[in-house]
Amino acid sequence: MPEEKYMRRAIELAKKGSGHVNPNPLVGAVIVKDGEIIGEGYHECYGQLHAERNAIANARKRGNNIEGSTIYVTLEPCCHYGKTPPCTEAIIEEKIARVVVGSDDPNPLVSGKGFKLLREKGIEVIPHFLKEECDAMNHVFFHYISTGTPYVAMKYAMTMDGKIACYTGDSKWVTGEESRAHVQTLRNHYKGIMAGIGTVLADDPMLSCRIEGGRDPVRIIADSHLRIPMDSQLVRTAKQQPLIVACLPDADETKAVQLEEKGVEVLRIPGIAVNDFSGSSSDSVLKYKDRLLADNLADNNISREVDSDIIEEKQKEVISLPVLMKELGSRKIDGILLEGGGQLNESALQAGIVQRVYCYIAPKIFGGAQAKTPVEGQGLAKAADAWHFTRIGMQEFGQDILLEYERTKEN
Amino acid sequence: MPEEKYMRRAIELAKKGSGHVNPNPLVGAVIVKDGEIIGEGYHECYGQLHAERNAIANARKRGNNIEGSTIYVTLEPCCHYGKTPPCTEAIIEEKIARVVVGSDDPNPLVSGKGFKLLREKGIEVIPHFLKEECDAMNHVFFHYISTGTPYVAMKYAMTMDGKIACYTGDSKWVTGEESRAHVQTLRNHYKGIMAGIGTVLADDPMLSCRIEGGRDPVRIIADSHLRIPMDSQLVRTAKQQPLIVACLPDADETKAVQLEEKGVEVLRIPGIAVNDFSGSSSDSVLKYKDRLLADNLADNNISREVDSDIIEEKQKEVISLPVLMKELGSRKIDGILLEGGGQLNESALQAGIVQRVYCYIAPKIFGGAQAKTPVEGQGLAKAADAWHFTRIGMQEFGQDILLEYERTKEN
Repeated sequence: MPEEKYMRRAIELAKKGSGHVNPNPLVGAVIVKDGEIIGEGYHECYGQLHAERNAIANARKRGNNIEGSTIYVTLEPCCHYGKTPPCTEAIIEEKIARVVVGSDDPNPLVSGKGFKLLREKGIEVIPHFLKEECDAMNHVFFHYISTGTPYVAMKYAMTMDGKIACYTGDSKWVTGEESRAHVQTLRNHYKGIMAGIGTVLADDPMLSCRIEGGRDPVRIIADSHLRIPMDSQLVRTAKQQPLIVACLPDADETKAVQLEEKGVEVLRIPGIAVNDFSGSSSDSVLKYKDRLLADNLADNNISREVDSDIIEEKQKEVISLPVLMKELGSRKIDGILLEGGGQLNESALQAGIVQRVYCYIAPKIFGGAQAKTPVEGQGLAKAADAWHFTRIGMQEFGQDILLEYERTKEN
Repeated sequence: MPEEKYMRRAIELAKKGSGHVNPNPLVGAVIVKDGEIIGEGYHECYGQLHAERNAIANARKRGNNIEGSTIYVTLEPCCHYGKTPPCTEAIIEEKIARVVVGSDDPNPLVSGKGFKLLREKGIEVIPHFLKEECDAMNHVFFHYISTGTPYVAMKYAMTMDGKIACYTGDSKWVTGEESRAHVQTLRNHYKGIMAGIGTVLADDPMLSCRIEGGRDPVRIIADSHLRIPMDSQLVRTAKQQPLIVACLPDADETKAVQLEEKGVEVLRIPGIAVNDFSGSSSDSVLKYKDRLLADNLADNNISREVDSDIIEEKQKEVISLPVLMKELGSRKIDGILLEGGGQLNESALQAGIVQRVYCYIAPKIFGGAQAKTPVEGQGLAKAADAWHFTRIGMQEFGQDILLEYERTKEN
């Protein structure tokens, strides 16, 4: 079907804006007349022209007469004055005869208004054309516009036996070059990148985007007690690439001032109490079995394997991730790539902020009962209560596999 | 290409023998004349007719004249007297004009002899036709015939964060029904099934094949100290489905006699010393850092994450898996599905006996630093030393994924 071809081209164009339009959506447009593409364009950069106007400009530049043509656009044309004049106006002015649209405007107050306006002018409107594909490319935008908080995509690379490092901590490398290159496209796609202080202390990462023409993400570090080293790569580059360090309200003020002088934004976030599984010393040690009994799990006959284990339990205070997400949302950070360790990943799942998982699997085995896995912390007690996901993609990168999942809503 | 169609049909037929021909190979044959299949057959059961003779019998039964036909056979026809007369003889007698063959006979002393014999009689021979596909179906046979030990396929089902159970031990269920049904076809395919005593004590499994017309595997339990309960399902069914319990030479003789009275084969296997990571009490405790230093790993800057951890180390004696494999090989067990826990799986990898991995991945997350993973034990210290595999297959079972890997030879 040739019409699909045109919309697919519009989608392809839209994706070129990846990383540069946030928190706007990716939008592409193709103008077709007599079976030929006479103009095309996409929303290239936040604050600049919309896709429709770029496509019209492109057609004009090529000396083409737009009158009577069809425009394929991946998202419902806007009909309001924002940073740019409404696109419906341009379509009407140019005497375009037919408008084929993918996604609806996510704002229920606006959605359909543009269509009505166009139809009143005698323009034929075909909505919901390849809607699913158009919607899929703007998962971040649709989430952000409806919640005001960033879309969080958890990314990890593990061996085929579920390890993100050897028991020694060595993790160079889990996946191959092709997978690691693909991660860079994710860093370009998501406005923000988040890691925990554990990762910073272990790896001293840059968390930049290492692709040509790529855009560095805003770096966000969950660092309850402001332990980030002043000489870390992150702090030293804070004036070149934004760095937000989220800490508890009572974190060291002197350190905060020092960080701010280096260009770091220190964000104080209220704390919540969580169980601490990281240390071994403890004031209030509970035997594992006792807790199981307390949880009424013993009856379910699921304690046999761990009867002899003792897991120590104590409480600690960490920043509230939902509050942090609201703060980041208000800073126009619409999406976050979460490159956390197992602790932060579990906290994010517990907090219910994870929308998507990029799970890279390498064809190798590290083994090790003590080796780190992608999601640690306490975890869930019952298999039936697992965090459920829906698989939405699968790609090969050399010998590695990338499985892409979206959080299943009803769970 | 029509010839490929005929060989693919022969492969399809060959696979029908799965579970019933061990330790013989799977073989299928199709006889074609004037572009039509006039006879087909496969090696159906150990000790019975070979595929070629079954295909000839089938053609005759259908009243077809075989003279001048082409036979497609997945494995080089035998030219020696075994349990049945040589198939080359039948081909010559039937005046078949052309023989198209997939795999070579794995015995270098025999391979090519059949071809020579046929060519001397004026029969055209085309070897190595779809050889890769024909070889792939007999990975167990080729391994067994060349080593005398079983081909070991490790199978596990894990969440997308690498857990085989919740931290409580609850694992009902990790994967969905379709995956679990597929595991039954593996139990039918492999002659033996192996698990550790830990799995027996935790789950009291049957380790049978629950598919219609399926064949129950020989059950092998690695149980160094003969801890298997007399009232376990395994022991109670030992007279109906073979059960081999492998223990150390000094394991309790009284218990051994009791087991033998129930129909269990108790196999005494020499022990080897390994590090014990299962308990917490210890005579010779080494601090983790000290061991890292001893291993000259500290210089590689990979000890940061675990500096504060103490892992206790003591030695224990377990059965030698390579010796066990030799014993099982001598009992004509050509392949084993290893459904071990993390401990046994790691021992098997350390022993170098694992040839293949079936890794089922469910679209859910359990989390938990204490939750069990597919391969535990000590594991490997350096990522560069990982056990490497080559991905040879990927299948979907509902929302689950099965990744199939073969051990990479050069690692």
